[in-house]
Amino acid sequence: MKDTYIKEFTQIEAKNPIMVEGLPGLGLVGKITIRYLIKKLSAKKFAHLYSPHFPYFVLVNKKGNVRLLRGAFYFWKNENGPNDLILFTGDSQSQTIEGQYEIADRMLDFSQKYNVKTIVTIGGYRMETKDKPNVFVAATAQELLARALGAGAVVGSSGSPIVGTAGLILGLARFRKIDALCLLGETRGYLPDPLAARSVLEVLKSAFSFEVDLTGLNDEIAKAETMVTRLQEIEEKRALQAEETRKEEDKKITYIS
Amino acid sequence: MKDTYIKEFTQIEAKNPIMVEGLPGLGLVGKITIRYLIKKLSAKKFAHLYSPHFPYFVLVNKKGNVRLLRGAFYFWKNENGPNDLILFTGDSQSQTIEGQYEIADRMLDFSQKYNVKTIVTIGGYRMETKDKPNVFVAATAQELLARALGAGAVVGSSGSPIVGTAGLILGLARFRKIDALCLLGETRGYLPDPLAARSVLEVLKSAFSFEVDLTGLNDEIAKAETMVTRLQEIEEKRALQAEETRKEEDKKITYIS
Amino acid sequence: MKDTYIKEFTQIEAKNPIMVEGLPGLGLVGKITIRYLIKKLSAKKFAHLYSPHFPYFVLVNKKGNVRLLRGAFYFWKNENGPNDLILFTGDSQSQTIEGQYEIADRMLDFSQKYNVKTIVTIGGYRMETKDKPNVFVAATAQELLARALGAGAVVGSSGSPIVGTAGLILGLARFRKIDALCLLGETRGYLPDPLAARSVLEVLKSAFSFEVDLTGLNDEIAKAETMVTRLQEIEEKRALQAEETRKEEDKKITYIS
Amino acid sequence: MKDTYIKEFTQIEAKNPIMVEGLPGLGLVGKITIRYLIKKLSAKKFAHLYSPHFPYFVLVNKKGNVRLLRGAFYFWKNENGPNDLILFTGDSQSQTIEGQYEIADRMLDFSQKYNVKTIVTIGGYRMETKDKPNVFVAATAQELLARALGAGAVVGSSGSPIVGTAGLILGLARFRKIDALCLLGETRGYLPDPLAARSVLEVLKSAFSFEVDLTGLNDEIAKAETMVTRLQEIEEKRALQAEETRKEEDKKITYIS
Repeated sequence: MKDTYIKEFTQIEAKNPIMVEGLPGLGLVGKITIRYLIKKLSAKKFAHLYSPHFPYFVLVNKKGNVRLLRGAFYFWKNENGPNDLILFTGDSQSQTIEGQYEIADRMLDFSQKYNVKTIVTIGGYRMETKDKPNVFVAATAQELLARALGAGAVVGSSGSPIVGTAGLILGLARFRKIDALCLLGETRGYLPDPLAARSVLEVLKSAFSFEVDLTGLNDEIAKAETMVTRLQEIEEKRALQAEETRKEEDKKITYIS
Repeated sequence: MKDTYIKEFTQIEAKNPIMVEGLPGLGLVGKITIRYLIKKLSAKKFAHLYSPHFPYFVLVNKKGNVRLLRGAFYFWKNENGPNDLILFTGDSQSQTIEGQYEIADRMLDFSQKYNVKTIVTIGGYRMETKDKPNVFVAATAQELLARALGAGAVVGSSGSPIVGTAGLILGLARFRKIDALCLLGETRGYLPDPLAARSVLEVLKSAFSFEVDLTGLNDEIAKAETMVTRLQEIEEKRALQAEETRKEEDKKITYIS
Repeated sequence: MKDTYIKEFTQIEAKNPIMVEGLPGLGLVGKITIRYLIKKLSAKKFAHLYSPHFPYFVLVNKKGNVRLLRGAFYFWKNENGPNDLILFTGDSQSQTIEGQYEIADRMLDFSQKYNVKTIVTIGGYRMETKDKPNVFVAATAQELLARALGAGAVVGSSGSPIVGTAGLILGLARFRKIDALCLLGETRGYLPDPLAARSVLEVLKSAFSFEVDLTGLNDEIAKAETMVTRLQEIEEKRALQAEETRKEEDKKITYIS
Repeated sequence: MKDTYIKEFTQIEAKNPIMVEGLPGLGLVGKITIRYLIKKLSAKKFAHLYSPHFPYFVLVNKKGNVRLLRGAFYFWKNENGPNDLILFTGDSQSQTIEGQYEIADRMLDFSQKYNVKTIVTIGGYRMETKDKPNVFVAATAQELLARALGAGAVVGSSGSPIVGTAGLILGLARFRKIDALCLLGETRGYLPDPLAARSVLEVLKSAFSFEVDLTGLNDEIAKAETMVTRLQEIEEKRALQAEETRKEEDKKITYIS
């Protein structure tokens, strides 16, 4: 395997498909979003993407089976709307600059093969989040941008970068006459963040008018909040102890004078 | 030398060969395993693998002779069983991601040339080991997995990665219609670990029904244990001294009050 | 996008063009210089340079529009003098060695297409600067060097390197029979430095006999000075506090004896 | 410049040439050795080696002239002996693994063009040296090894690596049917070490029976010794001050009790 390549194992018939991409990144927002869509829509896997630019290890499942790191494309036949969906997620992003460009390019080749006219990329945006995380939007086309703004997304501060595949796909899409939109959910970023994913999904649903029930994320969100609370308690306890230790040592010394 | 390549210097006639791979890694488990097999079976070297992705130095032997870092293939004619063995070990793994993929690919090309249907890769698995280290197994085929489990290996925890050539060969093998099995011996990992290698060899013998006397490893195992004990003593002494120094300093200060 | 490439979107007719290059680097001297020239001369953008060796992120503007990192070529028709100008600046330098060489090579290919005989590269030179920063000069041709010296530039100390695109273009230009000159403005380097850029522009104007009003930089220079002064005050205050803390602690201890 | 390449600017007629290589490395032993030979033998430069794997900066000389990092080949017509010499030195080694292999390969291509049958590579070997540094030898051919041993070189400890071009040339030479010898002068390695270079030159002269007066190195050696002595004094003074500071602080505290 000298180059990134995509292996299809099921033929699909896609009607005006939109591709939605979400790879691991800040808060795993992209990956959580796509995995939730796959599950809720019962989308079917139809292709894998392999690359010699992924990290050089393999994954073992609980039965002892092994596989390369890879990306996977899923297909959802939209019976009630104008656009079928091609969903993409994976185990990892490329570890090299050249690999990042190559993988984004292969994904765009693949999009063109299926006549994809619109790509949405999903990621996280590092920020101290509130109860209701914002969704930041960037796009290569005014029409797409307007649609996301209409669905509640906001424009971020100028000059901010979008790192990795979610960004490069937008940058490279304009050379292919494909419109692309990026949705970034606000997240602290160091833990999987289903709350940010839900915010992104709300924008996505509304902007592209399809139905997905999001209540299935509530459990994950509750668990994540418990985790954050527990980590904060540990952190506070640690800070308190450090403070007391400091006071103890101060006493030892100030006794002297 | 622009790419990884394999140079054969002896023609072999292999009967249903199994390839067994073990490169340097955690606890040198893979390399110790293969070297022991080579010695005990009097396997004959018949090919070298060179790569511009190995580190850029050469090795000097005690006579002042020099050679590139390389891998080496050995052949063992199995007079009493159905499968000849091709053994592979070497000086180093690739230092780059792309090199790791390239080397695993060249090894699979080579396997196909000799009609290898089964590859076993050997490595270490970092863990605080007991007297009898476990051997973790992963495989691309149920039949191989079952064979290793029957020989005493166990399945590790889900999601754990297998890093480097031992893993990538499994990941890439399925594109070649070669079955592959990985055996990882539990090891602390920071010292050569012949005990872990013996555990792996026991599984290997039993799973593939060939005879090798393993008592020859006992001396190495005893030496390694002495080494570990000595290091632990040094570590404990150091901890004790640090503790005493701390107390001394505490006294100086607490005298004051 | 497998290689660096240049995309022209406007045809230009250049008369004995000189190319002037300034990418981000120490004190942003190169980029500030080129941007000022573009603005003052109302130069027109006519081509972009893209490369898979730039960092793998995209930039978002305040309207939410996205673009790849890139370089840009601007054209200025010189109505009153013998040489038109092609100005080049961009978002970033290459992140890899091989990318640095490739980008400099593509820029030289492009120069040859437009029959450029002289290239000037602009950068910063790290040094504690005075009121009037020096401009250091290096060149591939005596005639160019003399011209810059005549315009007030000085030769730096022997053996000093010029890092990045500004240097490589000079190194590679001689294989293309293009003369090249590098002007480096003295700068502390850690903040955008319009004062250094003005010094470079003065040499450039005088050496190549074209008119640009530089007073437009005065505001930026004043702002940068305010910034430096403020940073120095913060630094001094911090040093003072550290000193006092030290004295306080000394007292605690020396009370004892 | 996509690949390493060699540009010849003078035609040479070489009689049974031996190539001697010395690039920057530990104690600059290789480079000092080759530069001394070039000067003493009045060898003539006839070719340059350029590579996109060298660091991405250019050098400026005291006149303000600029050049790429490069290697240079020099030719010495040996009027009194059987072997002409091709000497090679340069500014830098490659910064990437693949570049190291590529450069060594291009040098071997070039050697074959001139029918070179023997290559000698020079470097340093890190060690606390004595008055008379040892010269360690490694070779691809017994005859060459014997010659160096006869000239006073010694074989180092087994398994020690030779890093960089000096080593890779030996490792790759055997695929070209070229014999190669490596001479490593003992050096502390952190300062230019002409004493180690002289030891290497003594072995070289004697092993290949040609005359070079080495007294020209005496001045450099004396200067280097002065430098080492001065550094040691500074180091000792610093240690002494640290010791006194420690005692002072101990007093402050022990006054207390």
